[in-house]
Amino acid sequence: MNSFGRIFRIHIFGESHGHCAGITIDGCPAGLALPEADFLADLERRKGGVLKGTTPRQEEDKPIFLSGLFQGKTTGAPITIIFENKNTRSGDYEKQRDVPRPGHADFTAHVKYGGHEDFRGGGHFSGRLTVCLVAAGVIAKKLLTGMQVQASILEIGGEADIDKGLQRAIDAKDSIGGIVECRVNGMPVGLGEHFFDSLESLLAHAVFSIPAVKGIEFGAGFAAARMFGSEHNDAIVDAAGTTRTNHAGGVVGGISNGNELIYRVVVKPTSSTPKEQQSWNWDTQAVEPFAVRGRHDLCIALRVPVVLEAVTALVLADLMLLEQKINRVL
Amino acid sequence: MNSFGRIFRIHIFGESHGHCAGITIDGCPAGLALPEADFLADLERRKGGVLKGTTPRQEEDKPIFLSGLFQGKTTGAPITIIFENKNTRSGDYEKQRDVPRPGHADFTAHVKYGGHEDFRGGGHFSGRLTVCLVAAGVIAKKLLTGMQVQASILEIGGEADIDKGLQRAIDAKDSIGGIVECRVNGMPVGLGEHFFDSLESLLAHAVFSIPAVKGIEFGAGFAAARMFGSEHNDAIVDAAGTTRTNHAGGVVGGISNGNELIYRVVVKPTSSTPKEQQSWNWDTQAVEPFAVRGRHDLCIALRVPVVLEAVTALVLADLMLLEQKINRVL
Amino acid sequence: MNSFGRIFRIHIFGESHGHCAGITIDGCPAGLALPEADFLADLERRKGGVLKGTTPRQEEDKPIFLSGLFQGKTTGAPITIIFENKNTRSGDYEKQRDVPRPGHADFTAHVKYGGHEDFRGGGHFSGRLTVCLVAAGVIAKKLLTGMQVQASILEIGGEADIDKGLQRAIDAKDSIGGIVECRVNGMPVGLGEHFFDSLESLLAHAVFSIPAVKGIEFGAGFAAARMFGSEHNDAIVDAAGTTRTNHAGGVVGGISNGNELIYRVVVKPTSSTPKEQQSWNWDTQAVEPFAVRGRHDLCIALRVPVVLEAVTALVLADLMLLEQKINRVL
Amino acid sequence: MNSFGRIFRIHIFGESHGHCAGITIDGCPAGLALPEADFLADLERRKGGVLKGTTPRQEEDKPIFLSGLFQGKTTGAPITIIFENKNTRSGDYEKQRDVPRPGHADFTAHVKYGGHEDFRGGGHFSGRLTVCLVAAGVIAKKLLTGMQVQASILEIGGEADIDKGLQRAIDAKDSIGGIVECRVNGMPVGLGEHFFDSLESLLAHAVFSIPAVKGIEFGAGFAAARMFGSEHNDAIVDAAGTTRTNHAGGVVGGISNGNELIYRVVVKPTSSTPKEQQSWNWDTQAVEPFAVRGRHDLCIALRVPVVLEAVTALVLADLMLLEQKINRVL
Repeated sequence: MNSFGRIFRIHIFGESHGHCAGITIDGCPAGLALPEADFLADLERRKGGVLKGTTPRQEEDKPIFLSGLFQGKTTGAPITIIFENKNTRSGDYEKQRDVPRPGHADFTAHVKYGGHEDFRGGGHFSGRLTVCLVAAGVIAKKLLTGMQVQASILEIGGEADIDKGLQRAIDAKDSIGGIVECRVNGMPVGLGEHFFDSLESLLAHAVFSIPAVKGIEFGAGFAAARMFGSEHNDAIVDAAGTTRTNHAGGVVGGISNGNELIYRVVVKPTSSTPKEQQSWNWDTQAVEPFAVRGRHDLCIALRVPVVLEAVTALVLADLMLLEQKINRVL
Repeated sequence: MNSFGRIFRIHIFGESHGHCAGITIDGCPAGLALPEADFLADLERRKGGVLKGTTPRQEEDKPIFLSGLFQGKTTGAPITIIFENKNTRSGDYEKQRDVPRPGHADFTAHVKYGGHEDFRGGGHFSGRLTVCLVAAGVIAKKLLTGMQVQASILEIGGEADIDKGLQRAIDAKDSIGGIVECRVNGMPVGLGEHFFDSLESLLAHAVFSIPAVKGIEFGAGFAAARMFGSEHNDAIVDAAGTTRTNHAGGVVGGISNGNELIYRVVVKPTSSTPKEQQSWNWDTQAVEPFAVRGRHDLCIALRVPVVLEAVTALVLADLMLLEQKINRVL
Repeated sequence: MNSFGRIFRIHIFGESHGHCAGITIDGCPAGLALPEADFLADLERRKGGVLKGTTPRQEEDKPIFLSGLFQGKTTGAPITIIFENKNTRSGDYEKQRDVPRPGHADFTAHVKYGGHEDFRGGGHFSGRLTVCLVAAGVIAKKLLTGMQVQASILEIGGEADIDKGLQRAIDAKDSIGGIVECRVNGMPVGLGEHFFDSLESLLAHAVFSIPAVKGIEFGAGFAAARMFGSEHNDAIVDAAGTTRTNHAGGVVGGISNGNELIYRVVVKPTSSTPKEQQSWNWDTQAVEPFAVRGRHDLCIALRVPVVLEAVTALVLADLMLLEQKINRVL
Repeated sequence: MNSFGRIFRIHIFGESHGHCAGITIDGCPAGLALPEADFLADLERRKGGVLKGTTPRQEEDKPIFLSGLFQGKTTGAPITIIFENKNTRSGDYEKQRDVPRPGHADFTAHVKYGGHEDFRGGGHFSGRLTVCLVAAGVIAKKLLTGMQVQASILEIGGEADIDKGLQRAIDAKDSIGGIVECRVNGMPVGLGEHFFDSLESLLAHAVFSIPAVKGIEFGAGFAAARMFGSEHNDAIVDAAGTTRTNHAGGVVGGISNGNELIYRVVVKPTSSTPKEQQSWNWDTQAVEPFAVRGRHDLCIALRVPVVLEAVTALVLADLMLLEQKINRVL
């Protein structure tokens, strides 16, 4: 359940306010140098408290390697990385325990796990765990020689000028959603398997594990619903498979066609809006107004790009190994 | 690669112009009556040649049960169902072998499988195989007691009046895209696993195995990008978890919250448009105009609803078994 | 449950007295020629009715290819092969339905599947399904260039002279057990994964799917219990890893060391002995004498070698693909 | 590769001389109390330095819980437990780096991982990691209400008097092998799946992940090779499936029949014998005599029983969940 991948395979664990968030990466080729410095840039991009509109909770986000490295390189054995939780204020959550916050996993986790879930800061459901995805993504990116995985924010609150969209949220004292796009250059032809493990299936599977993502579209995406076939079809113009347009987003028949991989995701507004809301109160057994406590992002979409890159790289590294385009020993 | 599911698990095989399209369903509870009659309605809904705008190729689509049934009921052993291909005209494909059709798997399959792929009618990539998904879906639906899985077309070519959208395509002598929505009523709380096997991840994974789907969104979906948190959040109004609105589409934290499950997919226009197109010609080594031969749908979206229901039911049946809400013996 | 393998992956289905026994092989490299003639020798070796001591039930055992082949070669798509059941006499089984035969799955299947199991000839539990393993094994062997997989009978009823052992059974009008050994030459170093997917784990997993196998040992096997370390250790004598002795059976640390792979399995005496036995009678609710009806082998071990080779080849082909020593396109 | 199980699923990581040995248990039901005290007895049983003939290396073996527990109970989220390595003397291994020790993974790991493996103390291949299996086994055992899993040593060096067998090794200044038996009482009928996931297949798969195990047999095991069917068959004597004898070891058709589960494994003599040995020397490129450094067990079989119980419990807990005989919330 907390695992993903076939050869390059990750297992995630940890909680927002527990000891740590952690990840084990199995199947990584041996011989890959993994200096800590290589992780810093991506971890920094994901951090809150730096960008306007992100949570004031700041964690050091220092990766601690528990296994799988020897003399600075991967050994072929599972790599376990943890990020300790230090800057937690669980008291905030104790107080609002009676109210399942709308848009959070509070209600569903409570029912599913019979009240045994760690509710502090979202527990295992917290966006905090995406720090692990980013770390694993750094490793995956290093394996993708010649490929560039890059995600960026397309719009916030409907505004292509991101600052303007964010300001609307700040003015409204409300959280806000956004759209993030991911592109990969240098794609080989042939990634993606028949039928159920199409490149789109695997990417979508991974992407929906990122909290707050509620939709994904490839290439022309939903706009294709209004297009004629003659418009949407991408004419192939050379033996390498280059297409004149790229409405397919680089995936045809579920398999990469060598053109740029392009997809977009929608990130819903942070559920923890500063605004007063209403919800069921388990204690009073009535709908009551309440305000979310804790420290939260106004616009979680701002922190999604590097996570989106990470899960994309994870899927691609796994498929590259399956396709024997990455060796098992480097 | 051609498998999906953890307990209720399907394996698909077959080709468009080979002997048959087939599917094996492993992990189906024992004791389920499966009269052939129960399959007819859904198989009929998927058929071409009935609806205006669908392919004139008509197959009888009679399910042949090779295994797993005894005295009319499931035994707990794998159920294999095949659909023989009778009405094929492979000659059409031989003639256009030199031209990888834009939007099809012709080019990607050719490169990935080193020219060994069965190119006739799309081979294993053909939409023909969705007949197997529909059959498996019928079985899954029968397991989902008290749940109603229903998909319908929302728009064709941007028109909510479907006939109007279709007429535009007919007039333009071109194929056209559409949007299909799936809703499930009677959902229990608690379907979907932590992190990678969220309900959204699993549904998206399955949905992208349907040829021509290029995007999926849950609840408010892409519209959430323009919403404030106070708008998007669904206030919980009773102990059962009923929400006042349903922007989440029935999934919160990756787990069903007991409200209606709602998602939409975009179906691209059929790649095989009647219009003349351009593509690379492997023989002449030049971009050349060509016209697609074979019999094709003008609007493949028309045939998607019942397939969408099927993959949805497959995902839900698997999760219901995992959650022990369906017994292994009925 | 009915699946095995990670990249080269098989799914088995069918029953002894149903329409057929069948298998789907997913992940087979594209471009492998599969003439029917290549299957005949191994299928013949498995057949009953040829060897003294095997069942008089004779099936033609003609492989019917439903998918995955095009112009005589594999396409990369799933290969489905079925063997139709023709020579069945189900009436025999109807009559003894009330008595769960000792040593058969009759009792366990009945309880597990709530009485819905196909009991005719053992249904899905029948040794009949090993014909599918043999077919898949033929494909796997063809992939293992330079490797020789060979199994042979070591002893029957404790006699290295096989005929003598068999004669004891014929004289006693009883069935009898035996030991079968499998050896693989031409092994590369490095097959087998860390910890749970060791070569021994995978082989043992596969081997215990063969009905009647009750034990497996590698190299010196159980004799190692009485050995000193200085005796058991195989001294490495050159840079290729050649060892002076081979008590390890070619596997060290769960990974092949390049020496001959050697393991043995014990095959219990056929449960369906001609002798009168006692068992619980579900109808009379008492222990009663009964005689097994149907046609059966006196010594099922005689038919095991080719099946053992098959499952061995399946495991090795999968690991060779994982280790990138077999290409995905030939 | 380092994972095992379908619902109750474990992932192992760590090295002998690295930071720690660790394990993640996914799919454990929520609501299970896991006081540290419950782990002590089994961890103590596995320890070296206590029993005569075991390694003088003593580790505290204190389980550190990184995730998955809240208020002393499981939450349904992955449970990660690590055991820090403190008492390591890696220098011993640096010195013998040039000599791949016979019977160890030194040679195979070196070739497979291109020289990047952590060779200190066997690295990820070390028996040290079985401490993680024991910890996971404790959790699994707690889930198996009404079942007793018990393993014990049957013989050492061919002697049923264990002390005598051990003394022979001490006198010979050599290591020695043994046989360990595992029995489970309170088995329900119906554990084990069709064909590839038979109870025997899963147990054997798990058991061969324990270093030094070279064979497994169920019930009468290899002795069945010399038995007639009328001897081996276990007559069923009541409606519950009780059998008069238990040559099957509690598994028929791959499925538990409710009788005692019985199987035995052979444990080879510890490869690190105190005796001088010969092996290839990578540095001198010649076969040379050498003596193993480091601290080692004379008879590793002595420490196997609790590990065998652990892997048995892991397999059974997983099957009990699949069979819906353990709830997902306690």
